Amino acid sequence: MNKFFPDVETITYQGTDHKEDLAFRHYDANQVVLGKSMKEHLRFAACYWHTFCWSGDDAFGGQTLMRPWFEPGDEMQQAELKMDVAFEFFEKLSVPYYCFHDRDVSPEGSTLAETVSNFDKLAERLQQKQEETGLKLLWGTANLFSHRRFMSGAATNPNPEVMAFAAAQVRQAMNVTHQLGGENYVLWGGREGYDTLLNTKFQHETNQMGRFLNMVVEHKHKIGFKGNILVEPKPQEPTKHQYDYDSQSVHALLLQHGLQDEIKVNIEANHATLAGHSFEHELAYATENGIFGSVDMNRGDMQNGWDTDQFPNSVPEISLAMYIILKGGGFGKGGINFDAKVRRQSIDSNDLFHGHIGAMDVCARGLLNAANMIEDGGLDKAKDSRYAGWNEELGKDILAGNLSLDQLADKAVQQNLDPQPVSGKQELLENLVNRFC
Amino acid sequence: MNKFFPDVETITYQGTDHKEDLAFRHYDANQVVLGKSMKEHLRFAACYWHTFCWSGDDAFGGQTLMRPWFEPGDEMQQAELKMDVAFEFFEKLSVPYYCFHDRDVSPEGSTLAETVSNFDKLAERLQQKQEETGLKLLWGTANLFSHRRFMSGAATNPNPEVMAFAAAQVRQAMNVTHQLGGENYVLWGGREGYDTLLNTKFQHETNQMGRFLNMVVEHKHKIGFKGNILVEPKPQEPTKHQYDYDSQSVHALLLQHGLQDEIKVNIEANHATLAGHSFEHELAYATENGIFGSVDMNRGDMQNGWDTDQFPNSVPEISLAMYIILKGGGFGKGGINFDAKVRRQSIDSNDLFHGHIGAMDVCARGLLNAANMIEDGGLDKAKDSRYAGWNEELGKDILAGNLSLDQLADKAVQQNLDPQPVSGKQELLENLVNRFC
Amino acid sequence: MNKFFPDVETITYQGTDHKEDLAFRHYDANQVVLGKSMKEHLRFAACYWHTFCWSGDDAFGGQTLMRPWFEPGDEMQQAELKMDVAFEFFEKLSVPYYCFHDRDVSPEGSTLAETVSNFDKLAERLQQKQEETGLKLLWGTANLFSHRRFMSGAATNPNPEVMAFAAAQVRQAMNVTHQLGGENYVLWGGREGYDTLLNTKFQHETNQMGRFLNMVVEHKHKIGFKGNILVEPKPQEPTKHQYDYDSQSVHALLLQHGLQDEIKVNIEANHATLAGHSFEHELAYATENGIFGSVDMNRGDMQNGWDTDQFPNSVPEISLAMYIILKGGGFGKGGINFDAKVRRQSIDSNDLFHGHIGAMDVCARGLLNAANMIEDGGLDKAKDSRYAGWNEELGKDILAGNLSLDQLADKAVQQNLDPQPVSGKQELLENLVNRFC
Amino acid sequence: MNKFFPDVETITYQGTDHKEDLAFRHYDANQVVLGKSMKEHLRFAACYWHTFCWSGDDAFGGQTLMRPWFEPGDEMQQAELKMDVAFEFFEKLSVPYYCFHDRDVSPEGSTLAETVSNFDKLAERLQQKQEETGLKLLWGTANLFSHRRFMSGAATNPNPEVMAFAAAQVRQAMNVTHQLGGENYVLWGGREGYDTLLNTKFQHETNQMGRFLNMVVEHKHKIGFKGNILVEPKPQEPTKHQYDYDSQSVHALLLQHGLQDEIKVNIEANHATLAGHSFEHELAYATENGIFGSVDMNRGDMQNGWDTDQFPNSVPEISLAMYIILKGGGFGKGGINFDAKVRRQSIDSNDLFHGHIGAMDVCARGLLNAANMIEDGGLDKAKDSRYAGWNEELGKDILAGNLSLDQLADKAVQQNLDPQPVSGKQELLENLVNRFC
Repeated sequence: MNKFFPDVETITYQGTDHKEDLAFRHYDANQVVLGKSMKEHLRFAACYWHTFCWSGDDAFGGQTLMRPWFEPGDEMQQAELKMDVAFEFFEKLSVPYYCFHDRDVSPEGSTLAETVSNFDKLAERLQQKQEETGLKLLWGTANLFSHRRFMSGAATNPNPEVMAFAAAQVRQAMNVTHQLGGENYVLWGGREGYDTLLNTKFQHETNQMGRFLNMVVEHKHKIGFKGNILVEPKPQEPTKHQYDYDSQSVHALLLQHGLQDEIKVNIEANHATLAGHSFEHELAYATENGIFGSVDMNRGDMQNGWDTDQFPNSVPEISLAMYIILKGGGFGKGGINFDAKVRRQSIDSNDLFHGHIGAMDVCARGLLNAANMIEDGGLDKAKDSRYAGWNEELGKDILAGNLSLDQLADKAVQQNLDPQPVSGKQELLENLVNRFC
Repeated sequence: MNKFFPDVETITYQGTDHKEDLAFRHYDANQVVLGKSMKEHLRFAACYWHTFCWSGDDAFGGQTLMRPWFEPGDEMQQAELKMDVAFEFFEKLSVPYYCFHDRDVSPEGSTLAETVSNFDKLAERLQQKQEETGLKLLWGTANLFSHRRFMSGAATNPNPEVMAFAAAQVRQAMNVTHQLGGENYVLWGGREGYDTLLNTKFQHETNQMGRFLNMVVEHKHKIGFKGNILVEPKPQEPTKHQYDYDSQSVHALLLQHGLQDEIKVNIEANHATLAGHSFEHELAYATENGIFGSVDMNRGDMQNGWDTDQFPNSVPEISLAMYIILKGGGFGKGGINFDAKVRRQSIDSNDLFHGHIGAMDVCARGLLNAANMIEDGGLDKAKDSRYAGWNEELGKDILAGNLSLDQLADKAVQQNLDPQPVSGKQELLENLVNRFC
Repeated sequence: MNKFFPDVETITYQGTDHKEDLAFRHYDANQVVLGKSMKEHLRFAACYWHTFCWSGDDAFGGQTLMRPWFEPGDEMQQAELKMDVAFEFFEKLSVPYYCFHDRDVSPEGSTLAETVSNFDKLAERLQQKQEETGLKLLWGTANLFSHRRFMSGAATNPNPEVMAFAAAQVRQAMNVTHQLGGENYVLWGGREGYDTLLNTKFQHETNQMGRFLNMVVEHKHKIGFKGNILVEPKPQEPTKHQYDYDSQSVHALLLQHGLQDEIKVNIEANHATLAGHSFEHELAYATENGIFGSVDMNRGDMQNGWDTDQFPNSVPEISLAMYIILKGGGFGKGGINFDAKVRRQSIDSNDLFHGHIGAMDVCARGLLNAANMIEDGGLDKAKDSRYAGWNEELGKDILAGNLSLDQLADKAVQQNLDPQPVSGKQELLENLVNRFC
Repeated sequence: MNKFFPDVETITYQGTDHKEDLAFRHYDANQVVLGKSMKEHLRFAACYWHTFCWSGDDAFGGQTLMRPWFEPGDEMQQAELKMDVAFEFFEKLSVPYYCFHDRDVSPEGSTLAETVSNFDKLAERLQQKQEETGLKLLWGTANLFSHRRFMSGAATNPNPEVMAFAAAQVRQAMNVTHQLGGENYVLWGGREGYDTLLNTKFQHETNQMGRFLNMVVEHKHKIGFKGNILVEPKPQEPTKHQYDYDSQSVHALLLQHGLQDEIKVNIEANHATLAGHSFEHELAYATENGIFGSVDMNRGDMQNGWDTDQFPNSVPEISLAMYIILKGGGFGKGGINFDAKVRRQSIDSNDLFHGHIGAMDVCARGLLNAANMIEDGGLDKAKDSRYAGWNEELGKDILAGNLSLDQLADKAVQQNLDPQPVSGKQELLENLVNRFC
């Protein structure tokens, strides 16, 4: 069989002294960290989307990535070729999981019926591929944003027929995900937002979205899907404002529509920074509010204002992210998916490997550093000591709801309280982190 | 009696042909617009905060504004002098309302007891001032951010005694607001956030905040205060991240703590833009979700990344803001407070008037333009037509919850739906707005 | 002859009471303002680029704009069809000028020779179109950014053969512009920058750029082209950093390479805001430093971080821009080109008209307001009075270079100078502007 | 003698296994790296400014840092106390250099004459302190931004008397710097910019600045000062726009005023990111254009839009910065000054040590990593290979100016050039960097 990456062998752990590029220096799948293997902790997945579906075009230029499956030809055959290459890549990369949108793996037909039929056929082929390779599906999703019919939204379209069309795609994508043993189902609402309030019924659209999300949850239970339903927050781009702006915005939507126990978030680092938050912030919000699901691990460019989806390369940042995730209980059914979009100029097929290998090594280092911070315990101890007062009588009474404003105010006035500030010790704590990063 | 603004008479409406600066060209208090006077619509308030308490200092320089009440002396006497000047200003400006923080009007004492006593005395004097002038209180609030005891938060402080201290201030500020007939009570959590997650128990702090907000609501009912409790969203500054980031974040907090029917938001234009949103976005979110309370009407500098609190001066922007507010039912008990911080270089006392007069005229023009847009009806009509499908059977069934995902998907597949996109007509609608602005 | 816009007549001035959308309410071409007609002042141009070459695709979706010339077919015939529609549009819009990139009007051939031959043929057809319609060319330019050969730069490519290829395109585009009587030649360096410093010889690349710009200027003189050579600053997008970041950066490049008297800037509003500047700032820098050439009049979205290229719709902003341009002597050979990219959802062909009509009316209002501000003279007077000291002895001596630091310091010390600050009166001046906007 | 930091001994290198906080883990002053000691490479300086002059106040709160020298009292005595503590700190920190503004070390008098006299006296005391401790002065500067007389600029003030006052301060600060053996003199123009163009003569002000900078250079030569004159770029804050926006803007100013060989830049990391650039970008621009002088090594908060001046804590970022600096020839007379402003909540005196120790260790790690990257040579090799074509005939001819546009275009057309793009290999290079960081 002809291979697309003929000069690439399966990537293996070789340690930090290794001289070649196509090897892991830090990711040792079976190395045990805090009682679990790296592979079990990190649950790496590679995606179809940027890696096999993007042609290198941007707003000012066309295709740079010359892949045979982009060439004109029978679309189903090209989809099969793409699938062969994708699985060759996933396997050689040694990731246990992959992810896809329906349209990544299966072409739009000339009618909805043909579209559905195409996907059914190719889903069977995915099943075979999984069996042949042992790869598993981290999540599936439906592309409700690329086709012009979705230009004004899918679930939030002013035309209810578009929501019906979206329902057909989501139903099939959920069913396929379920059949393939997928562990999560993701919704990213790239067009669920507005370009201008002048033509937008804001509340109407978010109510449409709430209803749609409820349908999805009901369907999950109907078919017996045990995975998580995940919404992926993003603040803007392609639209001016997206309704799933950040984790807290999604939380508000879930609370409004009674979905807070049914839906979690898939957090992307670059979406966090576009929303004006740090990646750690989004992780802390989600883990502490019980809605953390999974991660698209990438990075943005802090000097540019759009989604660059670059592979993560800052070990200190990923160490702090992993620390929050581990403290929050780890990934559960989620994992680390790479939106490791190579640069438009990275036109060699092997550049795909470099992006992913770099990302996986950075995550492995982050995991090790986070584990060391946890074992050291210094960060925890500092926090516990700072909040110690809340374990004493006054603090407990307040949080238990035992004190009215009047009662609490009376305490302050009667005791002529004059609480003295205590150093936040940010510099010391940052130095402590740097001992491990 | 000696006046601080000796050469300023009461500002009156003089029309657009007037040549002098100290006059309204557009704000005609008694002009009737959509059935109510401008005064009733706009409910203007001036604030103590930036106007009488800021000395002109910034991060790189000291005092530029040489006000007599900033000079050393007996603090209570200086507070009285400041009050006299403030009311001279409010009256000459012809605003019906004013606003204050407890520490704006009343100095910190050497003990909490003295602080409370100071405020009680000066609250009585405010009462007299209101009676003499007819001015009313739009809202009161407590300053829980300037003193170093609050450096790590008030309600969200790691030390519960600081929350007790805050409770004493808030209790008194609420009681004083109630006694003075205030129509709202505001909470702005300038220190309720974090500088680093390394020393922060995120969920612990937001739970503290939720408990505190509940105490406030309970106290409101206990004392029979009929005004609104308002939280003022702000994303960052002074802290790295504030828990009341934007309207949707506040909404999430309210929903989590069962407060969505008890607390509304006080939206500030500059805080909206710091959060990455347009002012219109924040207004649309709040009005359509039933949590709109009041407005701090100012503007930021889109090239700078901090709160400049400049007076609003863009008529098209304020026209769209007023359009959303009017469509949402108007201000109710809220109003338009000016955080019209003059520039550090605007050291003449009359510059305070120029900032407020300009702001009030811009708001008056915005109101008139918004009323014209409403009377024209074109914007409404365009929206209704765009969403017309939701008044037909399919749309109604979806929103009523009559269709499962399967049923909706079946419709699409069985009918081989191919919904065609329809122009969003943004350019046309923007031109329509410009006919009125 | 079949028309693409069959229901659109030539757009004419109809005044503000007109009820239909396809009319000017403010742009009255022959109305005389400050001694010149609006047409002569504003020198409007429409562009091929966004209006006839963009298919509606963005980073997350494909074509939405279904134009017949995008359909598969003979590329030269499709280029002719596009040209017919473009000139129908330009003529009906009543703009005196148009603009193009070489590849907008003429397709890439299978070899460079064929590409050159295509453009020669279509340039002749442009000549005929100009003669038939009376339209004139504001500027021509070469597209050195869309094809993958330019992915790492054109003049700044690591491969000198790419610069040679670029030279072939620029030479022909300059020659064609000259033949068509174009009044300016523009260079926008979309790929002249870097994505990462790790693979970039910074100074080498800017030296390449300096050499290339010098070649362009030499060629201009050789062929006797009397128009201006313009560089269009842009800070980033598509690259992480572009060497022509803003007007001052371009100025530094010109000064370094001895080109400050030969090249001017084409300022785009949206590029200004992406660079962290106001549009007025860029105009002020360029006019006051003698390098102002022309304008791409559009706007960005202040909540989004990429080039949205929307049509200008804020009258106050455009009024201040026009004020600076008029004070700087007006457009000279430059003019106002519209990068009036319609929104991706604006799929009706008439939306192209709405975007341009709105833009032209806003510019006309801006011109009128600016003229009124100039005739009023209040702004000028305030500035002159503020700087009056520089017309007295001390100020004159300083600027004439008559005083050393020692001498100037001695004056201060000997006179025990204690200069008192004077109000900057920003609020008053902003109110003054709002009397006219 | 009473000490301010009684429990702090001189900070020494203890290696990475050390358990205590008050020690260097990486900065080993005498360790030789690329032929020079760490101390000689890094030329560390601590500053008076944030460390001993800032009280902890911000825009929303007052003093948190309770230092004895902030208490009321005789200002000259308090300045002496502050000096004693500062030198205790510098010495215990083991930095070889310190820096100051005139007003940091010496109080404003009631007249200019008294101000001058104060500074003369305290300059003598600094001289003694230097002799006692062996500390050296990296740079001196004058504070031309804090006093209200400078609110509208110093050299760019609308009142020439303010420039005269500034001249008196700069003359004395330069003379004192010279007497104290300072190695650089810095100008940071915090108020040299505008808040609104409405009251600003842009070109007039930049000409004032150009003249003033020329005076400074002339004075340098007159007094025989052999150090560098440095301008510190900053884009905004406190003003809306500062004329020394970034390195390239400063370069434009220098080129316009003939100062490009006389003045260099002092680059601050946080100012770079506020200007929309990476720190590396600013370093690359300055080193490659021959205007690199020195560094204020800090970091900003990428989620906040103001100058946070936090100590650097990202090893990968500082490694890349050090790589550029070393490749550019190192610091020369410049060095690394820490604007290591502790957080407002870091109220313990020892927090000052934690901030600086962390910073110095991060810089030491950055130096070691950069040296390893240089010794490895992989980055250099990749760049050289990418640009290899410029060492061949075509490339050399182009850069030598041997080819006109026509000649270069003819080559392309005659040879029917079709240059093929080559991968930029960004992912591979980023992985290579991560082997060392």
